[in-house]
Amino acid sequence: MSNLDLFLIISILVSALAFCFAAWLYRWVKAQPSSNERVEEIGSYIRKGAKTFLRKEYLVLAKFCGAAAILIFIFLPAPIWKGGSILQNLTIVIAYLCGTIFSAFAGKIGIAVATMANIKTAESARSGGIRPSFLSAFRGGAVMGMAVVGSSLLGVTLVMAITHDSTALLGFSFGASSLALFAKAGGGIFTKTADISADLVGKVELGIPEDDPRNPAVIADNVGDNVGDVAGMGADLFDSNVASMASALVMAIALGNKMGVDYSAMVFCYAALGLLSSIFGVMAARMGKKDDPTMALNMSTYLTTGIFAVLTAGATYIFRFDWRIWGATAIGLLVGVIIGITSDYFTNDDKKPVRNVAKASESGPAFTILSGISYGFLSVLPSMVGIGISAMISYNLCASISPEDPIAGMFGISMAAVGMLSIVGMIISNDAYGPIADNARGLVEMGDLGDEALKITDSLDSAGNTVKAVTKGFAIAAAGLTIISLLGAFMSEVNEAAGSVVLNGFDIINPLVFFGMMVGAAIPAVFSAMLMLGVDRNAQRMVAEIHRQFREIKGLKEGKPGVVPEYDKCIDIATDGALKELIPAGFFSIIVTIAVGFIGGVNAIGGYLAGNIVSGLLLALFMSNSGGLWDNAKKYIEAGGNGGKGSDAHKSAVIGDTVGDPFKDTAGPSINTQITVVSLVASLMASLFLSFSLF
Amino acid sequence: MSNLDLFLIISILVSALAFCFAAWLYRWVKAQPSSNERVEEIGSYIRKGAKTFLRKEYLVLAKFCGAAAILIFIFLPAPIWKGGSILQNLTIVIAYLCGTIFSAFAGKIGIAVATMANIKTAESARSGGIRPSFLSAFRGGAVMGMAVVGSSLLGVTLVMAITHDSTALLGFSFGASSLALFAKAGGGIFTKTADISADLVGKVELGIPEDDPRNPAVIADNVGDNVGDVAGMGADLFDSNVASMASALVMAIALGNKMGVDYSAMVFCYAALGLLSSIFGVMAARMGKKDDPTMALNMSTYLTTGIFAVLTAGATYIFRFDWRIWGATAIGLLVGVIIGITSDYFTNDDKKPVRNVAKASESGPAFTILSGISYGFLSVLPSMVGIGISAMISYNLCASISPEDPIAGMFGISMAAVGMLSIVGMIISNDAYGPIADNARGLVEMGDLGDEALKITDSLDSAGNTVKAVTKGFAIAAAGLTIISLLGAFMSEVNEAAGSVVLNGFDIINPLVFFGMMVGAAIPAVFSAMLMLGVDRNAQRMVAEIHRQFREIKGLKEGKPGVVPEYDKCIDIATDGALKELIPAGFFSIIVTIAVGFIGGVNAIGGYLAGNIVSGLLLALFMSNSGGLWDNAKKYIEAGGNGGKGSDAHKSAVIGDTVGDPFKDTAGPSINTQITVVSLVASLMASLFLSFSLF
Repeated sequence: MSNLDLFLIISILVSALAFCFAAWLYRWVKAQPSSNERVEEIGSYIRKGAKTFLRKEYLVLAKFCGAAAILIFIFLPAPIWKGGSILQNLTIVIAYLCGTIFSAFAGKIGIAVATMANIKTAESARSGGIRPSFLSAFRGGAVMGMAVVGSSLLGVTLVMAITHDSTALLGFSFGASSLALFAKAGGGIFTKTADISADLVGKVELGIPEDDPRNPAVIADNVGDNVGDVAGMGADLFDSNVASMASALVMAIALGNKMGVDYSAMVFCYAALGLLSSIFGVMAARMGKKDDPTMALNMSTYLTTGIFAVLTAGATYIFRFDWRIWGATAIGLLVGVIIGITSDYFTNDDKKPVRNVAKASESGPAFTILSGISYGFLSVLPSMVGIGISAMISYNLCASISPEDPIAGMFGISMAAVGMLSIVGMIISNDAYGPIADNARGLVEMGDLGDEALKITDSLDSAGNTVKAVTKGFAIAAAGLTIISLLGAFMSEVNEAAGSVVLNGFDIINPLVFFGMMVGAAIPAVFSAMLMLGVDRNAQRMVAEIHRQFREIKGLKEGKPGVVPEYDKCIDIATDGALKELIPAGFFSIIVTIAVGFIGGVNAIGGYLAGNIVSGLLLALFMSNSGGLWDNAKKYIEAGGNGGKGSDAHKSAVIGDTVGDPFKDTAGPSINTQITVVSLVASLMASLFLSFSLF
Repeated sequence: MSNLDLFLIISILVSALAFCFAAWLYRWVKAQPSSNERVEEIGSYIRKGAKTFLRKEYLVLAKFCGAAAILIFIFLPAPIWKGGSILQNLTIVIAYLCGTIFSAFAGKIGIAVATMANIKTAESARSGGIRPSFLSAFRGGAVMGMAVVGSSLLGVTLVMAITHDSTALLGFSFGASSLALFAKAGGGIFTKTADISADLVGKVELGIPEDDPRNPAVIADNVGDNVGDVAGMGADLFDSNVASMASALVMAIALGNKMGVDYSAMVFCYAALGLLSSIFGVMAARMGKKDDPTMALNMSTYLTTGIFAVLTAGATYIFRFDWRIWGATAIGLLVGVIIGITSDYFTNDDKKPVRNVAKASESGPAFTILSGISYGFLSVLPSMVGIGISAMISYNLCASISPEDPIAGMFGISMAAVGMLSIVGMIISNDAYGPIADNARGLVEMGDLGDEALKITDSLDSAGNTVKAVTKGFAIAAAGLTIISLLGAFMSEVNEAAGSVVLNGFDIINPLVFFGMMVGAAIPAVFSAMLMLGVDRNAQRMVAEIHRQFREIKGLKEGKPGVVPEYDKCIDIATDGALKELIPAGFFSIIVTIAVGFIGGVNAIGGYLAGNIVSGLLLALFMSNSGGLWDNAKKYIEAGGNGGKGSDAHKSAVIGDTVGDPFKDTAGPSINTQITVVSLVASLMASLFLSFSLF
């Protein structure tokens, strides 16, 4: 049995283990107590809302993916009437559809468990205290983590085992991406529409507390946490994880053909060990003596990182893998951790940036905004430099495997991305923990579970926010590295399609490359703007609806017993608006990519991808960090800093937070997916661009 | 006599003509009436404040430039102890110092006339009506325009005539850039510190009108318009103009050596004709029957454009220049105009973006900010695509002059930049008109010149704002093209230093290039953040001082006759603060450039410059357009839209405007200069990076 076959089997086994572990975690969470009827009822509203949104969203996506599948069948990788083999095109269609289905499946599981774990977390906070409450939230999130990583590894493994075809891998990855693009953008618009509208009418106009059950948008807000931060974010990381593996495999195959060594085995080995490490990390996660949930989350992340480094070093030794490739993987992981720590610096309320923004808020909202944007701009430097250095080192480490051919170096970069994403199981668990804790806080408030429970869920919620900034930095950096390596994948696809080396790089001085670079750099900005304007329009619709309800439903504002707002109307507005607004933004980036390819050919596309990565990383980091910073500055003031709740500084900080909401939860993280989709579209259409282009 | 000699002489003559014309305009403005003593007095405060700032700033810059001159003498273009010839290094030092002196000289003239023209404009508004008032402001601005373009053309011509050395040209250009970097950043910090502080305490806290003489910061605010928008912006465009000529000449020489044709003659011919066209345009500028100042400014710009196109076509025909090069120049100019028009769309209050932001302001300041940022993001697309297309077309047009060598194509791009900047004399005239009209409005208010005069100066001021957005778009795009062509200059410097073709392009796939690109892309963001945080800190100091004065000076708040605030204290704070804050930002970008060069060598620098251009253009366009949009949304509401003055929408719009102030007048336009400086540092140090680098 070859190494590759061995690790394909191991990958399938580890995926199966992840599913079993997820099932165990699910049962564990389900077995936790949930007594309060009121909480159960509100929880069921949330669950119903989330499921409705997901069903509608998947329906829209099914249409889009169906149309895409037909186009792929006709045109990709080569037009069916022009040298394209029907079998190969069909393989890619199937791989593509599997990519969408696997991702959607993981999203469904995540929503199912998250909308149950929120109730358990709320109840445990009341009856059991912070430790069991934390565990309910964390293990609920971990179900999502295991489902996502298990299904992404399983999917890639099956595609590889069955087809052994790198284009099919890209097709699977494209399926995952196109789902992620819409799921992240749609979920992001939904969640921020509801969040902003609820805050605007509730907190700002009427002065009622967050999560007050009188607010017609309050359920939509909690649904939003689930569809945006659980389903959307899960699809995003599913996508990144698949893309990193796919691009590593594309280059492993190309390099392997040349060198006669099977590098793909290493990719599967490391990916499987990463999932295994995450399983250990999740099992080990619990609160220490200090009852500090942030520390509990961070410690288990570091533990996972350590385990992964040791396991992969062991495997490299045993199977005599190339140590240079292990080095690239380790560098990626190390830089990921460093980037996570710097994101933490810019968004943690113990550090200077948040403190300064809170202080600036005393002079008025304009200063909140200006200082927040400024720190957001500053925050990009360490991450960009970190990504640049890790790409440079991992490239140089591996370039010596096959000097004179950039593919070896690009393989090194892709392995750095695999390394950075190795602990993605742990990252998703941490990230999905956030909305569960946030929801639990809402349920405690709405279900009147008492001040002690509120304090506990507040503390769990705040830890979720801090950790979210770190994991976001991680995810963005990993996407950056992945996409650089997709540039390599694109090149190798072009050369394969041409049958000879027509591309050996992309020269900035080449005007086609430069033209592409300028257009590519503008895309993430325009994409973000479309999403933010979508949130803006949608929020205005919802605010009008909330106003209507307060006006027309008698006794609602006064809180008369038995009077309930029409929660579902708000959920419908958020749902329909999100689906309506995400379509143009999603199509825009795909269409421009295709236009640039047919105008400027493969060289323009190379520049386009480079410009897209550079500006995409810049904006994604800026927006995520500014948004996180404003959120925590507000929380810092609410906790008593700079005049505390109700002060002028607080009012300014609330405005900052409202601006930050679509920054950090709609536009910023969607850029990741936008970049990946564009890269995959380019790679898949490489041979078309090579044959048909204006210049 | 060779063509080159002919056009060198013509250039000197045209420069002399521009100076004579400037002197005539100066005398014309001076001859206008100025009767009111009160206005004279306030005007003298402003003049004194501006001159003091300029003196202090030039003193700081003299130290910096002196130190830089010593370093240049020792190290550039080659270390003096290592093959460097003392004479050559000395030539560059002298060229460098001339660059700073010529630019400073133009700035001094501009300030002198602007601080006189403001009084004349105010008085004419009272006694003569809108037409003479407009002419005073416009011709005052035109003095600056003629001084800047005359001295930049003269300087470049002299350096070329005396040295015939392309490195000396880059030295002159670097002198202009280093002055511009600090003048723009320093002036930008000064002006926005004063503007924001005056508004914050005056309009927001106390509810007194703009330009109320009780406000201690009101003179500083008017000084700021001069030092930021006249001196700073003049230095910026001086720099862009010199850089575009220098980089075109570097490549004209390199290409000429190869082809045996003297292309430099064309550069001087077109530059001289551009200045001549601007002289015609300025002479022709006057108001039509509609009394519409915006139209008067725009018509003279289009007229200049038309004259330039015709004159250069004629010269090309007569002197049998290469029509492909003329084509590149024309494309540059055409795209410049298109970019100007799209900037206008995003900032004009007749158009959808401003209207939508004004409407969104009704829902609160967070929506003002979000929608303004979104439209700012959208606005980058046409300009980026335009720059990309003009680079691609001009490259392809000229590449056929010498196929197989990128230098011919890069020369085409640099000629597109020369074309775009050909009408820079007109652009500066329009731009310097703005602060003069703005100042005049302040003088009318403070000197009680009556409602009719206020209405006239309001209308002149508003035209200045609209035109400013257009000229800014122009300036940014031109800087973009210039810097792309500087990339070519850098490559040709490297190859010349190496004595063979060591660089034939910069491959994105090369990890050093990629590393450079990531770092370069982060620089404009960090640079902007440092400037904005500088404004933030400085404004807080000034707000404290204003509060102190209102507290301690009895009768000030009540407007007791004879009680005057201590205007000079505020001017001192703005001055000292600006000088203190600009140093780190300026040094930061230079030091990182040098660090990247010594770490990654010439390849990393190539990527670094590319990343810097891409992200710099993106952020500069975004910030300038968002800022202009917020300003006009506020003005639109103040003119009665969406609830008018005092409404909630107005309050939100004021916050948007305050955020936009440092966006559009500090950070956004300074990025231009930052990119140019970095490109020139790289080109000048090319041979050092080639000899000493870590990788």
